[in-house]
Amino acid sequence: MANDEITGVKIVVIGGGTGSFTLLQGVKRYAKHVTALVNMADDGGSTGQLRDELGVLPPGDVRQCLVALSDSPKVRDLFNYRFDEGSLKGHAFGNLFLTALEKMTGSFGEAVELAGRVLNIEGRVEPVTLSDVTLCVEGVDGRPVKGQFTIAHQEIAKRPKIWLEPTAVANPAAVRAILRADLVVVAPGNLYGSLAPVLVIDGIRRALHETRAKCVYVCNLVTKPGPTDGFTVKDFASEIERLAGGEFLDYVVFNNDEPSPELMEKYAHGGELVVKYDLNELRRQHYEFRGVPILAKQAWTGAQASDPIASARSFIRHDSDAVARQLMRLYFA
Amino acid sequence: MANDEITGVKIVVIGGGTGSFTLLQGVKRYAKHVTALVNMADDGGSTGQLRDELGVLPPGDVRQCLVALSDSPKVRDLFNYRFDEGSLKGHAFGNLFLTALEKMTGSFGEAVELAGRVLNIEGRVEPVTLSDVTLCVEGVDGRPVKGQFTIAHQEIAKRPKIWLEPTAVANPAAVRAILRADLVVVAPGNLYGSLAPVLVIDGIRRALHETRAKCVYVCNLVTKPGPTDGFTVKDFASEIERLAGGEFLDYVVFNNDEPSPELMEKYAHGGELVVKYDLNELRRQHYEFRGVPILAKQAWTGAQASDPIASARSFIRHDSDAVARQLMRLYFA
Repeated sequence: MANDEITGVKIVVIGGGTGSFTLLQGVKRYAKHVTALVNMADDGGSTGQLRDELGVLPPGDVRQCLVALSDSPKVRDLFNYRFDEGSLKGHAFGNLFLTALEKMTGSFGEAVELAGRVLNIEGRVEPVTLSDVTLCVEGVDGRPVKGQFTIAHQEIAKRPKIWLEPTAVANPAAVRAILRADLVVVAPGNLYGSLAPVLVIDGIRRALHETRAKCVYVCNLVTKPGPTDGFTVKDFASEIERLAGGEFLDYVVFNNDEPSPELMEKYAHGGELVVKYDLNELRRQHYEFRGVPILAKQAWTGAQASDPIASARSFIRHDSDAVARQLMRLYFA
Repeated sequence: MANDEITGVKIVVIGGGTGSFTLLQGVKRYAKHVTALVNMADDGGSTGQLRDELGVLPPGDVRQCLVALSDSPKVRDLFNYRFDEGSLKGHAFGNLFLTALEKMTGSFGEAVELAGRVLNIEGRVEPVTLSDVTLCVEGVDGRPVKGQFTIAHQEIAKRPKIWLEPTAVANPAAVRAILRADLVVVAPGNLYGSLAPVLVIDGIRRALHETRAKCVYVCNLVTKPGPTDGFTVKDFASEIERLAGGEFLDYVVFNNDEPSPELMEKYAHGGELVVKYDLNELRRQHYEFRGVPILAKQAWTGAQASDPIASARSFIRHDSDAVARQLMRLYFA
């Protein structure tokens, strides 16, 4: 009986980057109905080139979510395979796959659905919008900085204004998924680059405030120099809610474990510090919080070679299974 | 009972181009075990560029055979989809698919097998060799002309010497398929460009002479200006056997129907004439022959938009079902 209930849970994971990837790999083990909502702001690398040259919507983050929900290691390897020579250099095969499907069907939504069927994924991947948008963020001088790639490499204001140009129309399938969900999880991820371009879309915001699902934010593990410098767990959660136009979180989950001193030092060199938390400050918030040890212990090995998060030997990462179990506990609380 | 026997027939189709495509579409309806043996000499267009830039084996003809054996119209459209802008311009998606798989697995054979599984094809596609070869043909001046694409655009000798450089090693899976077959069919196709690079491979020749399968050649419908100018059915069949190093054909099947005068005139403008036959001459050959009406009656329509042979409105083509039925009659004769 209990098992039946667990497999019936409908979970939506919001994001698109590595954080989503990790979460999806975990929750797909416990929930039968997993939907990944993916931001459409990516414009760097292979994805940016395909957008520029062929006028398609950004395939990169969608590809990663498809891979996370696929069970075939060969297909995963294939989708993440990057050409390393000639005129195809730098393109991830999965990006070309989605691009060809979009050009063929004339619809990115249909392309993503077809790709999911070919990959035989467990769950669904939904672009958060089918509008062709550019992410815009307020720069330090108050002038807009445009494009996700540019934003990642330029200074931006603290707690900046963020918008999409042109205004994005929410994908109805994404809205429906949120409204029908039992659990909506904002994945850890690049706050302004990956999460904001989901949360600022009107239809998505409305759905987040209207849904009867429990809404959870799984907090980032480290701060980025510049935009989130010195951010505590509460600061991250406040920004999530500001971007979404108001309070909607029922829970905030954060890690209370410590990475190894070597790993922390390595990150500190890049200006990235482990996110701190203040229990007294958190107790004053409207949401409940759970500080739990959810740090991945093992270095990623060859067995996960198909995972983008394994591109270097060791990272500060979430333990996808531990996070998924914590989320299930919240659902059944 | 009869039906059981039919579905048990093991058929091998030799070639790689449009003729193979047509035959495969027909025989897959009647035979359970269809293997397409594909020449590896293609070096033009998208295929040539991928060979040059990435050092892979030629995916183009393999792609078409995979498509012929696939039952999903969407997958067929996807595999034949050609990018029309940017740095991907001209590439058929299926070629990129096979190329990525080959680079990923390090083996073209494995790539083709995996692609077949993803496409859920009925039957198998086997490259005739896994050697990276260049087709060489004797030119009019006696000097070698090298490369399939060049050969197609340059004058070559009548009944030329043909060889592969370096010497190709037959793919053991291709040899096995011939030895185990009930029926081996040499498909109509470009005699020196597509069929020769299969027939001149030592291991393939040996298998063709050793197999207990009935060996059939389905004759081309038109002659090409230059190489096969004025060729009769018997001339085509003789060349097939010369290229294969000796007599091995049990049957020659040819069309005895006439295309419309308009269509014949259109072809005549390009120097292509309907292949003639001389029954007295054919009666003197060691093989049996069947002159039958196997011409496609309908112009190809939008419904076959995924087929490469539908790229223009009307062609002189084989009726794939009529040819397949004729082949089955020979098997059961």
